[in-house]
Amino acid sequence: MAETVGLLGCGVIGGGWAARFLLHGFDVRLYDPASDAEGLAGEVLENARRAYRRLTLAPLPAEGSLTVVASAEEAAAGVAFVQESAPEREELKRELLAAASRAAGPDVVIASSTSGLLPSHLQADMERPERFTVGHPFNPVYLLPLVEVCGGERTAPETLERAAALYRRLGMRPLVLRREVDAFVADRLLEALWREALWLVADDVATVAEVDDAIRFGAGLRWAVMGTFLTYRIAGGTAGMRHFMEQFGPALALPWTRLTDVPELTEELLDRLVAQSDEQAGGRSLRELERLRDDCLVSVMQALRTHDFGAGAVLAEHERALFAAAPDGSGAAADEAPLRLHTAVVAPEWIDYNGHAHESRYLQVFGDTTDALLRHIGLDLGGGSSYYTVETHLSHLGQARAEERLHTTTQLLGHDEKRLHVFHSLYRAGDEALLATAEQMLLHVDTRAERVAPAAPELLARVERIAAAHADLPRPDRAGRAIGTR
Amino acid sequence: MAETVGLLGCGVIGGGWAARFLLHGFDVRLYDPASDAEGLAGEVLENARRAYRRLTLAPLPAEGSLTVVASAEEAAAGVAFVQESAPEREELKRELLAAASRAAGPDVVIASSTSGLLPSHLQADMERPERFTVGHPFNPVYLLPLVEVCGGERTAPETLERAAALYRRLGMRPLVLRREVDAFVADRLLEALWREALWLVADDVATVAEVDDAIRFGAGLRWAVMGTFLTYRIAGGTAGMRHFMEQFGPALALPWTRLTDVPELTEELLDRLVAQSDEQAGGRSLRELERLRDDCLVSVMQALRTHDFGAGAVLAEHERALFAAAPDGSGAAADEAPLRLHTAVVAPEWIDYNGHAHESRYLQVFGDTTDALLRHIGLDLGGGSSYYTVETHLSHLGQARAEERLHTTTQLLGHDEKRLHVFHSLYRAGDEALLATAEQMLLHVDTRAERVAPAAPELLARVERIAAAHADLPRPDRAGRAIGTR
Repeated sequence: MAETVGLLGCGVIGGGWAARFLLHGFDVRLYDPASDAEGLAGEVLENARRAYRRLTLAPLPAEGSLTVVASAEEAAAGVAFVQESAPEREELKRELLAAASRAAGPDVVIASSTSGLLPSHLQADMERPERFTVGHPFNPVYLLPLVEVCGGERTAPETLERAAALYRRLGMRPLVLRREVDAFVADRLLEALWREALWLVADDVATVAEVDDAIRFGAGLRWAVMGTFLTYRIAGGTAGMRHFMEQFGPALALPWTRLTDVPELTEELLDRLVAQSDEQAGGRSLRELERLRDDCLVSVMQALRTHDFGAGAVLAEHERALFAAAPDGSGAAADEAPLRLHTAVVAPEWIDYNGHAHESRYLQVFGDTTDALLRHIGLDLGGGSSYYTVETHLSHLGQARAEERLHTTTQLLGHDEKRLHVFHSLYRAGDEALLATAEQMLLHVDTRAERVAPAAPELLARVERIAAAHADLPRPDRAGRAIGTR
Repeated sequence: MAETVGLLGCGVIGGGWAARFLLHGFDVRLYDPASDAEGLAGEVLENARRAYRRLTLAPLPAEGSLTVVASAEEAAAGVAFVQESAPEREELKRELLAAASRAAGPDVVIASSTSGLLPSHLQADMERPERFTVGHPFNPVYLLPLVEVCGGERTAPETLERAAALYRRLGMRPLVLRREVDAFVADRLLEALWREALWLVADDVATVAEVDDAIRFGAGLRWAVMGTFLTYRIAGGTAGMRHFMEQFGPALALPWTRLTDVPELTEELLDRLVAQSDEQAGGRSLRELERLRDDCLVSVMQALRTHDFGAGAVLAEHERALFAAAPDGSGAAADEAPLRLHTAVVAPEWIDYNGHAHESRYLQVFGDTTDALLRHIGLDLGGGSSYYTVETHLSHLGQARAEERLHTTTQLLGHDEKRLHVFHSLYRAGDEALLATAEQMLLHVDTRAERVAPAAPELLARVERIAAAHADLPRPDRAGRAIGTR
């Protein structure tokens, strides 16, 4: 049975939590006094679904269901976890958290998304305040892995651990803070930069677009990969961190920031910010900007996944957990004829100058299908034994376009102790159009000796079972084809 | 003939400039009083070469040559451009720039890499100070596109334009500032964040690794994509920028940063920073960290290129310029038999769990070879006419591993007005081992009507020329193969 969580507030952050929980199979009870909570959550969920189709092919649980309720108490009653994401007003949050604490079960962890209010204050009016913690996420909540976990004076240590464990199940990277401090860690850093950015615009040194360019074409690229300290360690060269600090330390005392003042948000400054921001957006709608942001974030996280580093390592670990939690890597029965082992979504980066997927991407999907087949017969991918493709015959019968959902079928045409002869077909979901076929010959290899070798008996037994199930399937028309001009 | 630039200083920044200029075909005259300038530049160049092999397949000019010289005058005499990257001491920089200005030709632009010293001060002792500008890059200089261009009181406007134009030729993204200000724009933002980061460690709120995690798992991912202003515009939701500012403006006055103080770099704080930084590095050498950083940066930039956005748009534009500047997209003669049209390097992300390139990557290289062939016969890729692959027969004969250099050959097996029948072979550079072959049938398509159609006569004429040159080539053994078990 799906677990249920209670969410208080459905702005940009609350909506993001709703999407993240729903996509990970949790049912959500949502309270927001605004009239259109369901519509708002639905919009964020639509963006999130779109992003996840590209983010991962790992098996997510069946999506949870959303129920909008009429009070904080209703949201908190009977749920396994509560997350509050109301506007940043301490009184309002305290009230909501107190109400939730009276309605929720005694051991239910109650978390607040606050960007910077002190947990000791927020938990003051709660029943059983020891199960309260801050769980501060970052927008878009359904994509960015960071969540700061910070307890107050009365928070029990195990509350922090339980919250962190739940966030990890959502594919997040909890950063458990050892001390509470206004704005925690991340927002102190962001606020320092933001304040200086406002000064640069207020003093007319740069426009908002110029400030943004100064980040995204330079240090911003590094920050996606490494934080400031590791970056500077590298910049220090072989002499190391002490050398770097001694060389650049003196600059700290230079007038390089407007550090002693807070910029006043005059009407004039507000007007300037708004006008420059409109110009920067260049007429793109909020929805367009959100999708551009999400598309880029997904691609950046996937890029980092290829190096198993930073946010990419978080994603890779989450995918391993999702695969491990799925009842079967494929879900296919051993005797399905043909086998249905793999689905995929056409990512925008697969598209070439002709407007449809590059030919190599069809083979990528077929290769992933072969991997699914190998897992299906019990092969430990990356272990000492593997099947290598020695020959492939591809036929293209239609075109796959961005965001289309695909699935494949697999027919076993032949086998012996060293070989698998398979025929894959690739279909578009919806109209079930046949887009491509791939006939492949695979050879079993002892990967340590790098030599062709017979497969283990237990693998061969599973292959035999599939062969028996496929014995009566008609041979595909395109099997055994050769290329030739008339 | 290659252009020559003069570089003053060869630390991390000067070495990065040397690599960026050399890889873009400039000869470099380098002055650095340190004894091992050549060795240092060579190390950075080696990292840069490695990064560029993965960054782009666009045709870079032949690498320039490096000459280490004995004085600033020698570096500046007779060159087309001077870039100074000495340590951040105003007197030292003024002296070097003055010496260079006496030795360089009267119209030669002289730029300083200073992170924050005022250009009006730096140009004070120069001859013809109107050709001076700051050109402030970011580490690693050979990869990050940002360069801040900032003139002083006596700088001529055309100096800024000329410097920006040169930096663009290096694939960079110049940000020309309208006003000089200490630390320019980017370093003011970085310094604000850095100062707060030091406070967090000094006050023992977080370790250096925790501070870095608070960036790289959250806002850092966004900053690679969009700057702060555009990010917050989106976070503001449909209500827009004014709403966002009014909602979060009050937080500016909260004690969310240690904004009024400069952290003192005591011995105790230095020790703590160094110890925590050592722990964070986890025993990885500087060289390992540099490569990890570069690998991730390359992948992030390539990820953004798929969306033609931010640093990815800069890279895409640079590649278009490199292709346009190459004498021929391929360099192959029309009558070469077989044709040599394409080279590639195996990127680390091509490698699958078996330790060699995923099968789809071989087809990617063959697909790129087909694209090169199409360019070679005069097709305007992305125009109204194209060839689509309808059938491919791949044979795998060996394995490509990370960083190996590959090249392909192409033999035309047959053609008519609508079809091309080609046979590609993929070799490893060095031992010239044949790793794979691909036989392909391509159909000419009117892409607007999405219908098979005869190719234009001028394309067919070039195809005929290739066919004539290939008429006497023996037919490859593997042509016309079909897959079958014994």
